[in-house]
Amino acid sequence: METWDECFHAAVDVARKAGEEIKVAFSSEKRIQTKSSATDLVTETDVKVENMIISTLKEKFPTHSFIGEESAAAGEKVELTDNPTWIIDPVDGTTNFVHGFPFVAVSIALSVNKKVVVGIVYNAILDYMFTAQLGKGAFMNGKPIHVSGQEDIKKTLLIAELGKSRDAKVLDIIFGNLREFYNEENITHGCRILGCATLDMCQVASGAGDAYYMSGKYGIGVWDMAAGALIVTEAGGVVMDTTGGPFDMMSRRVLCASSEKLARTIAEGLTQLD
Amino acid sequence: METWDECFHAAVDVARKAGEEIKVAFSSEKRIQTKSSATDLVTETDVKVENMIISTLKEKFPTHSFIGEESAAAGEKVELTDNPTWIIDPVDGTTNFVHGFPFVAVSIALSVNKKVVVGIVYNAILDYMFTAQLGKGAFMNGKPIHVSGQEDIKKTLLIAELGKSRDAKVLDIIFGNLREFYNEENITHGCRILGCATLDMCQVASGAGDAYYMSGKYGIGVWDMAAGALIVTEAGGVVMDTTGGPFDMMSRRVLCASSEKLARTIAEGLTQLD
Repeated sequence: METWDECFHAAVDVARKAGEEIKVAFSSEKRIQTKSSATDLVTETDVKVENMIISTLKEKFPTHSFIGEESAAAGEKVELTDNPTWIIDPVDGTTNFVHGFPFVAVSIALSVNKKVVVGIVYNAILDYMFTAQLGKGAFMNGKPIHVSGQEDIKKTLLIAELGKSRDAKVLDIIFGNLREFYNEENITHGCRILGCATLDMCQVASGAGDAYYMSGKYGIGVWDMAAGALIVTEAGGVVMDTTGGPFDMMSRRVLCASSEKLARTIAEGLTQLD
Repeated sequence: METWDECFHAAVDVARKAGEEIKVAFSSEKRIQTKSSATDLVTETDVKVENMIISTLKEKFPTHSFIGEESAAAGEKVELTDNPTWIIDPVDGTTNFVHGFPFVAVSIALSVNKKVVVGIVYNAILDYMFTAQLGKGAFMNGKPIHVSGQEDIKKTLLIAELGKSRDAKVLDIIFGNLREFYNEENITHGCRILGCATLDMCQVASGAGDAYYMSGKYGIGVWDMAAGALIVTEAGGVVMDTTGGPFDMMSRRVLCASSEKLARTIAEGLTQLD
């Protein structure tokens, strides 16, 4: 029977292979299609890389289950069971990928009994490999990483996203939430928007940002959160629901921060989308 | 008498030296002070690097004039004459620098007869060296770069900034402007916020973003625009005032884009701050 160590190494290897494919495609012409809306892009690379990752891991671990962003988009049911389950986003940041903006990552997580035990996020363009195993810490390119530990909203660099929805009501809430952290009470040092949820979480894990939140059905799926959430908690950070409740990776909502106190301050400031 | 070629090489050399200092300081503890407001940060590195750049260039070009962000903050008059004038931002993206967020750059431009002839923007953290000489094209790490050529607002990846002001009226306009490109008429692929004006412009120059705008007295100074604007135009892009008029690097307003058509569409959508 396989250990999670074996799974960890298999995940790192296949992430690196996926990264190589992404990097080659990054500098070539892309054929773009849209999914749910004109701002929800997909390329042939997304599909090709997901198929490669799933077939590689399936061969090694034939009894495991799989959840992939593109398989889900193609109509496959997204169901998380207690069975060891690989959760895959082949190209997180597809819009960046299409535009040649260098925040693009492959994200691979392994969930066992609905708990993530392995998380890999690899940005092949900048060669940033973020890895974590449950209980064993988080790393970037092999070096341990830690959250900043920041507790003060006034000294916070916030990482945010505006999402893919162009629905006026959704956008009112999204812009309102961001504005909440640009006023005299909740004044932050500022916000950054990178367009890549998995790397947003890794920014928090490595201390290069202090907090990140995302919510709403157009925003984020389990494939965007599973690996990143483990990397954040293994780096000493906090992951919770945007409501302040416990994190549920199937909920399409996530809030992560460098400290419990900062996470609670942000959760209190957020208007919920759903 | 010196040629601009000699100035170009001197600027690249001193930018690389500045980058080395910034990179060392990037991973160390920083002593932070504030300038105009609680969100306007400065570190000892900003001041130290600016002094190094100015003294190095002054020794080589004793008759030249100098404008530096930190010298200006310390009360020196900002005056652009026809004399060859070096325009320097030692650490653009100081908030990123303080937080360890890897979008930080040194920016050096040489203006002659109020026209920029040399522009260098160097991100030492990611080792991205952007260079341009008037009439000789733009380069990243020695390879020619070009804007995307995008004309369609609906296919645009916008680069924006929310700025340092926390004044409610200013923020209403800044958030309103951004929201303008998130509606059904002016729908874009999305926006990215990096917190570094000089690199924002280089994203447009290299085609990794399609447009960038910034205006307002809290937002941007000549040191943030001089080098970047030359790099954009030498990469085939368009630089204009946010009102749609001609670009004036002393105006604290800039709009750059991959095409004239896109720039005009964005200018029409913007509410002016000043």
